[in-house]
Parts: sequence; structure tokens; C-alpha cells
Amino acid sequence: MVTGHGEGGRPALAREARELIEPAVQGILSTLDPEGGFPHASIIDVASVEGSDLVTLLSRLAVHRKYAEADDRASILIAPHFGEDDAMQRPRITLVGRLVQEDDRSKYRDRYLAVHPEAEMYLALPDFDFFRLHTDRARYIAGFGRMGWLDRQDLGDGDGD
Amino acid sequence: MVTGHGEGGRPALAREARELIEPAVQGILSTLDPEGGFPHASIIDVASVEGSDLVTLLSRLAVHRKYAEADDRASILIAPHFGEDDAMQRPRITLVGRLVQEDDRSKYRDRYLAVHPEAEMYLALPDFDFFRLHTDRARYIAGFGRMGWLDRQDLGDGDGD
Repeated sequence: MVTGHGEGGRPALAREARELIEPAVQGILSTLDPEGGFPHASIIDVASVEGSDLVTLLSRLAVHRKYAEADDRASILIAPHFGEDDAMQRPRITLVGRLVQEDDRSKYRDRYLAVHPEAEMYLALPDFDFFRLHTDRARYIAGFGRMGWLDRQDLGDGDGD
Repeated sequence: MVTGHGEGGRPALAREARELIEPAVQGILSTLDPEGGFPHASIIDVASVEGSDLVTLLSRLAVHRKYAEADDRASILIAPHFGEDDAMQRPRITLVGRLVQEDDRSKYRDRYLAVHPEAEMYLALPDFDFFRLHTDRARYIAGFGRMGWLDRQDLGDGDGD
């Protein structure tokens, strides 16, 4: 179960994974506490950009941003069925990579506001900046017993910047 | 905002945090990939036990269990409003501590089945075991601008085993 991909193989899983990532609006960011090295999960708003990469808008006051600035290793879980009774049988994906600040605030502005129009007020403040998860690989779970690891190429690559 | 606790102070936050933890049924586990040290978030079923500790039932086949066995540093996010439009304004808590296997499968059986009766079928299999998060501290976010760190004592302690 851990190494196989199940029905349809890797291409089918990759296609389903992309369909989960593209419309994502919220996710769970996991970052590293630089003091003790403990992993820390928190809710974030997201928008997908090229390939399997996601962007999010983080405040300088937030714990997860301080953590990401100290160590850029991160993951974002996309789990639209979290909280539902059958969540463990429904699709979700953990994108693993490095979370890097984008200094040009205009770069993702239009894409992000298309998904999160309410973020306009945050973008007017000086302490919010975009961070992009550069996905290296992903753990996709389609449901019970059907799952697999996918890499950046499987997920459609990004522009690589 | 990061260091303060807001209205009602630390005792009020701790009381609200306990009210969030006690009825929890699902959470997001964050573990460490022993190879690259990347944090990895995944959905788990949970049940609260003493104080702010949680138990979960993990399969030997699961990635997060392999990670936890290699390094027990972990966190569990309890976020019952994840996925809702106003999730960023609603309460959630990240419990940080060590995730340790409990070899006695009878110890948490009754409590866990009371919350997850469907787990009876997994407990009949040899490859599922209970793991307990021994919470050391927690990041509680009540809503926008009201949040704080809490420790094990604030959250009602456990039996300490």
C-alpha cells in the first residue's frame, strides 16, 4: 500500500492530485520550530500557481512565518474533506518542499486576490508578504489503500523559479 | 499579538483551549521525515485522554508512523472549523509534544472506541497500535488578534505517564 499506486497507476494518481491542488483555497502548513525542531501545523489560506506550487500570504507577526524564515523546509496539506465523517476515505495530498518569500508583492497579487478577494486589506499593510511553496514531492492519498508518492514532474512542474 | 493573550488573559484562553481539545475526533498530525527533516502533515483520527493529551491509532504501513518511530517530535492541530469560509477567524489549537507508542493495546481501547466505534475492525488487526501525544505546550488561536502559548499545566496536565 505504501509503495504501490493502485488502480490506474501513477499517471491516474497524478491527474487526480492536480485536480485537488488547482482549486485549493485553504491548507495546513507545517513548519519547523527552530528552537526544538518540533513540527508545527497551522491553517493558512492558499492559491495554486504553476504546477503543484502554492502561494500564501503570511504576517510578520505569525509564528509559522518566523519558523519558515528560520528554516524553509515545509509542507502544505490540502484536505478539502477534513472534518467530514469519511475524511479518512477521501482524497488529500501533502505537498513537501521549501517555503520561500517572494519580495515582489505584485507577482502573485492578481492570482491571490482572484481566490481571496478579502486579502486586499492585508496587502495594504506593510507586514504581509507572499511565500511560495516550491513543491519537491507529494504524498497523495486517494482513499483507503490507494496512494503514492509523486514528484514535481508528475504534478506538472512549475516555472521552476 | 504574538506574546499577549487578549481579553480574559491566559486563564480564559486555557479554558477555551480545553473545550476545543476534549471533544476532538480528527486532527492534523505533523511529523518529521527522518531523511530530509521536512515536516509532514496528515489527517488522523484522535480521542482526548487526560489533560491535553491525545491518542491516535496508527498503521505500521503509514508514512506518518514510520516518521514518528524514527523521531517522536510531533504536533497535532485541532481545527474543527477548517474548510469553512471564516476558518481564520475561528478557534484552533496546535498541541506540540512527543508522540509515543503505547504497547498495551487495552489501555486506550474503551476511550477510543467510545469516540470511534468503527475502529473496532482495525483493533482486530495486528498492525495498528495506539500512539499518545504527550503535549508539552500549545499554540491556541481564539481568532483574529487573540492568541497565545499555553503549557501543559495551563491545559490541565495529564497523569504524566
